[in-house]
Amino acid sequence: MRKIIKFKNKPKILSSASVVGKKENRGPLSKYFDIHDETDKFGQKTFEQAESEMQRLALNLALSKIKTPQKNIEAVFAGDLMNQCTGSSYGLASFGIPYFGLYGACSTAAEGLILSGMTVNSGIYEKVACLSSSHNSSAERQFRFPLEYGNQRPPTAQWTATAAAAFIIGKEDTEEFKSYACLAEALAGKIIDKGISDANNMGAAMAPAAADTILRFFSQNKHSPEDFDLIVTGDLGYEGHSICKEILADEGLKLGDNFNDCGKLIFDKETQDTHSGGSGCGCSASVTAGYIMEGFKNGIFRDVLLVGTGALMSPMSIQQGLSIAGIGHLIRISAVDKNEE
Amino acid sequence: MRKIIKFKNKPKILSSASVVGKKENRGPLSKYFDIHDETDKFGQKTFEQAESEMQRLALNLALSKIKTPQKNIEAVFAGDLMNQCTGSSYGLASFGIPYFGLYGACSTAAEGLILSGMTVNSGIYEKVACLSSSHNSSAERQFRFPLEYGNQRPPTAQWTATAAAAFIIGKEDTEEFKSYACLAEALAGKIIDKGISDANNMGAAMAPAAADTILRFFSQNKHSPEDFDLIVTGDLGYEGHSICKEILADEGLKLGDNFNDCGKLIFDKETQDTHSGGSGCGCSASVTAGYIMEGFKNGIFRDVLLVGTGALMSPMSIQQGLSIAGIGHLIRISAVDKNEE
Repeated sequence: MRKIIKFKNKPKILSSASVVGKKENRGPLSKYFDIHDETDKFGQKTFEQAESEMQRLALNLALSKIKTPQKNIEAVFAGDLMNQCTGSSYGLASFGIPYFGLYGACSTAAEGLILSGMTVNSGIYEKVACLSSSHNSSAERQFRFPLEYGNQRPPTAQWTATAAAAFIIGKEDTEEFKSYACLAEALAGKIIDKGISDANNMGAAMAPAAADTILRFFSQNKHSPEDFDLIVTGDLGYEGHSICKEILADEGLKLGDNFNDCGKLIFDKETQDTHSGGSGCGCSASVTAGYIMEGFKNGIFRDVLLVGTGALMSPMSIQQGLSIAGIGHLIRISAVDKNEE
Repeated sequence: MRKIIKFKNKPKILSSASVVGKKENRGPLSKYFDIHDETDKFGQKTFEQAESEMQRLALNLALSKIKTPQKNIEAVFAGDLMNQCTGSSYGLASFGIPYFGLYGACSTAAEGLILSGMTVNSGIYEKVACLSSSHNSSAERQFRFPLEYGNQRPPTAQWTATAAAAFIIGKEDTEEFKSYACLAEALAGKIIDKGISDANNMGAAMAPAAADTILRFFSQNKHSPEDFDLIVTGDLGYEGHSICKEILADEGLKLGDNFNDCGKLIFDKETQDTHSGGSGCGCSASVTAGYIMEGFKNGIFRDVLLVGTGALMSPMSIQQGLSIAGIGHLIRISAVDKNEE
């Protein structure tokens, strides 16, 4: 019942690629990202089309890294924050790969990795791709105000990252490339609504959902938090992450320095003025594809829990006075040569 | 490669339930729908919340029909047309079931059935739910104009159905209920963009994608179209369905009277003034949950192909001059006691 899914066949992360904007490229994780654009436009006329182009570039590069033609990819799991998920549909149309559109808000990368892991582990597909993206400028005008309005942001507000990432998940390594990391376990999140209705405090809205998933994970197995090099939430930001930590402590689960948040990692707190940190589908996606995958390559990471977090609201649901539900999807990424339960 | 997925363990459709609005309840399929509301509001203050309530009612009823508590459902696959898929997230929050949010536009029910079939067939989950919905009044003001504006609709326009449906898919029958139908095969759709940019002619935009999936299905196996009691597209409508039929005929695949469309079935052409027929996530979902499942129960249907169709655009992508990409997800539903390849 609602159990942790164990991937016995250890689906491998064969490749990953990240594409980011100007601000992300000036942040602390700059060296881990593959492609950036100083204009944030990626040669396109609109920010929305730029976001699609970022997905196209990310998948292209992820395929190139392992010299795999797109025809070998049997399915793609993708989604983004734009209305009707057009970042993914327009960005991926040219590949001709069977397409599963997802909407998990900012948890989409983790949701896609779970579905990728499930379908590859059970032999349904041999190789699949998983993508997600967000763009600060497409998100700001859709969720909040036109950029030109110059809206003031409260301290709890987060900065939607301009970032996209692609992962190729497969049963076997390719001839030329050996993978470093694999998908080991997964636990899908529940929709949790604790009554937060401040659209400028998404972290607080998502924190209970992340905590719920983390608590369910540790209650169902013998792991302790110290077994992991990194337990990282998607985009709770400073505010939400500290709330999540408190909820977990109240429930008796004390997390230490290995508990972090992609939204805290992607921007510099002192110099980049993002208030409560980064957010967006592309935030956890690019931090995982860049920073975390590099950590596995270098042997710094051997076991990581990613808890992708999403706020399941819309501007209209906020206008209509509804509170913001959150979700946290957990995926465990382990070193390929790590042998244990 | 991109092959048909055969569900060897035949995941069963344990239960289904449909919830529709006033117009749908006055249409030709009225007797097959479970719940309707003459006000289209389902006791809610807004049309958006009405759509969420329809999903909640549908899942509740589908569970009640087989006397299964919600705690026995391990995951739910759901999505809708509203921005950020809030029909599903708010509608399903109270169930506490691990949630995979989908966005396949009007193909979402078929996409969800495919993922339900995959996860149950491979033993990842024992019982899952799949939901989808649309509401004419929430869709009209989001995609086109406020209802009060009284916009004139061209002949190719379709009528977004006010409808929601839930399916419970499981490995085994429950003690009290025996299922009639199971998921037999699936083929995920590709994003196909043939350059149609008229948002009032979605059928034409989706027809090539439906045709692509149908052609791939019949080219990969020994079936002929006559083997099926019904081959039904999701919501191509009169215009799109005739285009799809033409494309298939051009490719040498002649489909006869068993080729139909949920958008043609749900409303009466002569008396209900919907122009090119019905559309929306809830259209194919409710027609399948109601009419098609009843057909299996009565033995009228023994083998059905549902090709859920979706238009992967947004109002903004249309304003920005982009064309409309389509997708067609195929799921084969067979009678439980049907023994053959």
